[in-house]
Amino acid sequence: MFIGRITGSIVSTQKVEEMVGQKLLIVEPLRVNEDDQSDLRPTGRTFIVVDTVGAGEGEVVLCVQGSSARFTTETKTLPIDAAVIGIVDQVHVGSNAIFVAADD
Amino acid sequence: MFIGRITGSIVSTQKVEEMVGQKLLIVEPLRVNEDDQSDLRPTGRTFIVVDTVGAGEGEVVLCVQGSSARFTTETKTLPIDAAVIGIVDQVHVGSNAIFVAADD
Amino acid sequence: MFIGRITGSIVSTQKVEEMVGQKLLIVEPLRVNEDDQSDLRPTGRTFIVVDTVGAGEGEVVLCVQGSSARFTTETKTLPIDAAVIGIVDQVHVGSNAIFVAADD
Amino acid sequence: MFIGRITGSIVSTQKVEEMVGQKLLIVEPLRVNEDDQSDLRPTGRTFIVVDTVGAGEGEVVLCVQGSSARFTTETKTLPIDAAVIGIVDQVHVGSNAIFVAADD
Amino acid sequence: MFIGRITGSIVSTQKVEEMVGQKLLIVEPLRVNEDDQSDLRPTGRTFIVVDTVGAGEGEVVLCVQGSSARFTTETKTLPIDAAVIGIVDQVHVGSNAIFVAADD
Repeated sequence: MFIGRITGSIVSTQKVEEMVGQKLLIVEPLRVNEDDQSDLRPTGRTFIVVDTVGAGEGEVVLCVQGSSARFTTETKTLPIDAAVIGIVDQVHVGSNAIFVAADD
Repeated sequence: MFIGRITGSIVSTQKVEEMVGQKLLIVEPLRVNEDDQSDLRPTGRTFIVVDTVGAGEGEVVLCVQGSSARFTTETKTLPIDAAVIGIVDQVHVGSNAIFVAADD
Repeated sequence: MFIGRITGSIVSTQKVEEMVGQKLLIVEPLRVNEDDQSDLRPTGRTFIVVDTVGAGEGEVVLCVQGSSARFTTETKTLPIDAAVIGIVDQVHVGSNAIFVAADD
Repeated sequence: MFIGRITGSIVSTQKVEEMVGQKLLIVEPLRVNEDDQSDLRPTGRTFIVVDTVGAGEGEVVLCVQGSSARFTTETKTLPIDAAVIGIVDQVHVGSNAIFVAADD
Repeated sequence: MFIGRITGSIVSTQKVEEMVGQKLLIVEPLRVNEDDQSDLRPTGRTFIVVDTVGAGEGEVVLCVQGSSARFTTETKTLPIDAAVIGIVDQVHVGSNAIFVAADD
């Protein structure tokens, strides 16, 4: 799996019937800063994922890719290769919390 | 999934029987401009995808990869690893619409 | 899927029984020239694929990857992750035919 | 499969029900030093994996990706694409042990 | 599939039960030299694969990735994403044999 930040969304009205009603988010994967592992850095890549947990723009999420994206209750019959399966609260590396989600 | 622009098509007359009658499009994946996230940039990569939604050259489309490309009604028995599953009308990042499809 | 040129072949006599009798080709993936989209360029990558359509060295072919490589009549029980599923006659980008196969 | 070092963990309280109770680790893949093959080098990449063997931070582990991550007794119904399947004790290249796990 | 050279092996005593007794090899993928296609070059990447054909260190082998790694008689229930399916005797590009395995 990978973690990424939700940066936006896409609108598609003409699509295969299985995808009607699905929310499509733009996610930019993040990586642990390889210099000193003190924070998360954007990778510049762009993935489109289906949301199953009510995630919103700006949030850091856990995403699954490939056939496993069809192994949640909500996604099992969808023609998708990526889905959000969790909202990330904290990321710990060594004794540091390098990411903590802001309270709402 | 990824978004990409349809840049062309290929013709193949000698092929496995399962692929007879399938339209094969060339798609160049796009990414959100990582400098200021103000538009979509081409990636220079080349994918061949099967079309299931009547997409045309120049359009921006949503594509699925891997085994999930076989999970639409139209593609379930095809030996394919990539398919168009939607035509993209708009791409939103933050409060901006960074892509809006031209009206026909 | 991707398109590539067949550049060679490999010989393997000691192999799993399922692969006995399979022709193993070397394919170099091609991409549309990203500068002016006027021709196909080699990528420098090396894939080994199973041939199902009688393709020969020098030809440009359409290849499928992953589990879908097992979805043709000829390959359904093989332990393979890549197969040729068509011979490419022409590649069109915009109003140009940027590749046309030579007549035999 | 790949080998990697466990560098941290993530916390996600709001997630799909199938993932409740799963331990989520951060793994940085390692590669054999390509100059003289004398040690393992970090790759700078970040994967999130499910642990099934009780691995801890700092340990080098064997990870599997894709649908095969669902082929252990512990993971078969999970919507995951990566799992730890072993703790690495030693890595041998040529006549050298280029990695030996520290005794506890 | 890809071809690679076996450069080493790993030892893992604490692992999922399905993997007990499996031989784990380190493979470095090779590519055809893109300058003049006269030989095979190492890629610097590191894969861990299960051996099913009795391959040894230094040998060039054919490897399969993904779910297809579970489609040999020996590997069908294993949680693996890569396996050796053949030992490579020769690699031909154009009219040249750019690799010939040494006789034992």
